[in-house]
Amino acid sequence: MLIELKEMVYEANMELPRRGLVTYTWGNVSGIDRERGLFVIKPSGVPYEELDPEMMVVMDLDGNQVGGRLRPSSDTPTHLELYRAFPEIGGIVHTHSTHATAWAQSGRAIPCYGTTHADYFYGEIPCARNLTPEETEAAYEKNTGKSIVEVFADRNPIHVPGVLCKNHGPFTWGKDAAEAVHNAVVLEEVAKMAWMTEMIGGRDCQTPQYMQDKHFMRKHGPNAYYGQK
Amino acid sequence: MLIELKEMVYEANMELPRRGLVTYTWGNVSGIDRERGLFVIKPSGVPYEELDPEMMVVMDLDGNQVGGRLRPSSDTPTHLELYRAFPEIGGIVHTHSTHATAWAQSGRAIPCYGTTHADYFYGEIPCARNLTPEETEAAYEKNTGKSIVEVFADRNPIHVPGVLCKNHGPFTWGKDAAEAVHNAVVLEEVAKMAWMTEMIGGRDCQTPQYMQDKHFMRKHGPNAYYGQK
Amino acid sequence: MLIELKEMVYEANMELPRRGLVTYTWGNVSGIDRERGLFVIKPSGVPYEELDPEMMVVMDLDGNQVGGRLRPSSDTPTHLELYRAFPEIGGIVHTHSTHATAWAQSGRAIPCYGTTHADYFYGEIPCARNLTPEETEAAYEKNTGKSIVEVFADRNPIHVPGVLCKNHGPFTWGKDAAEAVHNAVVLEEVAKMAWMTEMIGGRDCQTPQYMQDKHFMRKHGPNAYYGQK
Amino acid sequence: MLIELKEMVYEANMELPRRGLVTYTWGNVSGIDRERGLFVIKPSGVPYEELDPEMMVVMDLDGNQVGGRLRPSSDTPTHLELYRAFPEIGGIVHTHSTHATAWAQSGRAIPCYGTTHADYFYGEIPCARNLTPEETEAAYEKNTGKSIVEVFADRNPIHVPGVLCKNHGPFTWGKDAAEAVHNAVVLEEVAKMAWMTEMIGGRDCQTPQYMQDKHFMRKHGPNAYYGQK
Repeated sequence: MLIELKEMVYEANMELPRRGLVTYTWGNVSGIDRERGLFVIKPSGVPYEELDPEMMVVMDLDGNQVGGRLRPSSDTPTHLELYRAFPEIGGIVHTHSTHATAWAQSGRAIPCYGTTHADYFYGEIPCARNLTPEETEAAYEKNTGKSIVEVFADRNPIHVPGVLCKNHGPFTWGKDAAEAVHNAVVLEEVAKMAWMTEMIGGRDCQTPQYMQDKHFMRKHGPNAYYGQK
Repeated sequence: MLIELKEMVYEANMELPRRGLVTYTWGNVSGIDRERGLFVIKPSGVPYEELDPEMMVVMDLDGNQVGGRLRPSSDTPTHLELYRAFPEIGGIVHTHSTHATAWAQSGRAIPCYGTTHADYFYGEIPCARNLTPEETEAAYEKNTGKSIVEVFADRNPIHVPGVLCKNHGPFTWGKDAAEAVHNAVVLEEVAKMAWMTEMIGGRDCQTPQYMQDKHFMRKHGPNAYYGQK
Repeated sequence: MLIELKEMVYEANMELPRRGLVTYTWGNVSGIDRERGLFVIKPSGVPYEELDPEMMVVMDLDGNQVGGRLRPSSDTPTHLELYRAFPEIGGIVHTHSTHATAWAQSGRAIPCYGTTHADYFYGEIPCARNLTPEETEAAYEKNTGKSIVEVFADRNPIHVPGVLCKNHGPFTWGKDAAEAVHNAVVLEEVAKMAWMTEMIGGRDCQTPQYMQDKHFMRKHGPNAYYGQK
Repeated sequence: MLIELKEMVYEANMELPRRGLVTYTWGNVSGIDRERGLFVIKPSGVPYEELDPEMMVVMDLDGNQVGGRLRPSSDTPTHLELYRAFPEIGGIVHTHSTHATAWAQSGRAIPCYGTTHADYFYGEIPCARNLTPEETEAAYEKNTGKSIVEVFADRNPIHVPGVLCKNHGPFTWGKDAAEAVHNAVVLEEVAKMAWMTEMIGGRDCQTPQYMQDKHFMRKHGPNAYYGQK
């Protein structure tokens, strides 16, 4: 069942340590088969060097485990909420990558300080609020997902393929698991550059809006002209 | 004598340079056999690339060398104090890892700015005071151990498996030498993220207490649900 | 056609990921054959690991593609403007290297804080202005080139072989593609050191002018005495 | 002539890129044979990957080249001044290592913020003044050496085996070329930690003097007890 998707999600998970985005078992990637309504996710707490495609866990969109012998990532209810709220996305990544996590810890959205940011994220990369004590107690991981969805009430998750969770760390997504990892790498680099920028330039370095529009659209708009078509 | 423990402590020592926590001979790991009341520690000043398990030094809990031909790490009296004061711990690490040492040099405890921290350390990571001139002169390394123990008068060393020594560097511990090294790696990463956080967010970014409780307990509490049991 | 130049530009492009200057497909190198009035440039959006010399695109100085089956880098019109305005240069590099981009995002020129800088760049490394909305809309990449040329109205591009574009990133150049990459590596290192310098020394650390003269001239002046002639 | 010394100085030079202390050809190591009054130094501007022991240049203490076919490092007159002024030293290193250079660019001595520093450098690591225009013009590299010697009028170069030159970079030394490189590695790490310390702790973090004494003496004093004797 879902052999290809398990293989793809496995590969996407293994890309996290190769790209320096995770320490030990911190982080997880999932990918979804929208037709069947099933998603595949990393098992909880398994070191990357011991992972294989067969260990991937299969979940349905009601949160039931329907395949795999290991327990899924403890963040699975967050992935589930995002797949339910954002029907356009096909893969999700959670990491504690260093600079993105520092921004999450500071509780601030990452301002758009340059075209590296604008090429991938349209506008600031938002920071979701802390959960309340009740939300934390009741269903922490599920409510984390809901707090992310809140932030996208007036944003398009395809135009802003990632978010920070306050005092926690980043989530990114994409059309599939590989693109979600790609966006996690970009977010970490954008977070690093933004952090450096404030040290020398303060917080008043935003990219003019028309320049953000230009860069985002030349890669993602209907008349995009970056790349080989 | 203690062949397996020597092998384990050797492996834990070799993990320090692999994880980028030491330069040259800076740092040492020990592990204890509580039944026999003996601990094994790195010899002093030997480069990691020349180390082998047979070089490990065996000490008793009165501070007598009972095995090994080389002199033990000059920090051995600190390890000894910690093994005597904290009967729950089985391994100890000392490094001068860059970011943890910067916090130690600043003389500040590391505030809990996020869940990466809360997953491993319950509350701030404390900073032990400077020794007095008399304590420094009389028995520097032993008194370093005592100054650490002071800090844990009202803390559980299992819930806070590490400490900074002011103007010096970090010590971490765990149930065995391998876990102590794991905690040293985590401390360095947490120190790095906290350092970055203050640059963009100031010092007012603490994680709400109920969120710290949630994260620490989901990994370490009686109903922990992280990992494969 | 231009087999050797394609090989050289290919090699110069491959040096970017080896030197840690690019993530994914960010960045491009070109090189020119001044006799034929043709330049060779990386194709747009092709990952470095898939690149080969045959994929390089050939352009004339009117902006027509005259060789290669792939589309040229989207930054090609910027390269074209620079080749037309600076007849002394033979190669151009664009990257989003981390520290240089942070300076570009801050909108500040990099002050000459030391001899590492003075050995390669005479005086500050300037920062070109943002384009207007009209310039951005009409011919963004071409106008980026023009905004760089503006900055060199009173500077010698051979003495200052690079520039930052505000909210975007750096361009460097040299007598050929290889030297342009060399200068991109130096710029990134100089940007890193300058960033660090301001954290501990503020902005008042400029190198005395006579010392800048000495260092630049001992490597580049008529009586240069650095190296094996 | 001096085959063993050339081999040793070659090896010490090659350690610079392995330890990440140099970019391209920045940096050089020399070593001296005090009995013969000759020192061996890297040739100027030769990439490390092309270096071999036979390329090393031999100089006498009057500044005459007495062996080797290539031109010596442009910093040779600085090395010469140091060998003449400090008869106890046997090897010298110059680098532009990133963090040490940032301190040099800031024009500040590195305060002793911790025991990592105190284990190797007794007291602050001083910063030599800028040369005057006349000193720069007349004999730049020789006068750089003299400005370093000035700083050691009231310091022991064995107790403080390194210095920063304002707006330039660090020099370190030791009993031979290998130890000089060792001290260059330590200086870079100490400079990095001190830089980080000021970001979170300000400038008021000095290590108490009695603690500096203790650490320096336990490694270097007559009753040193670090290492295997």
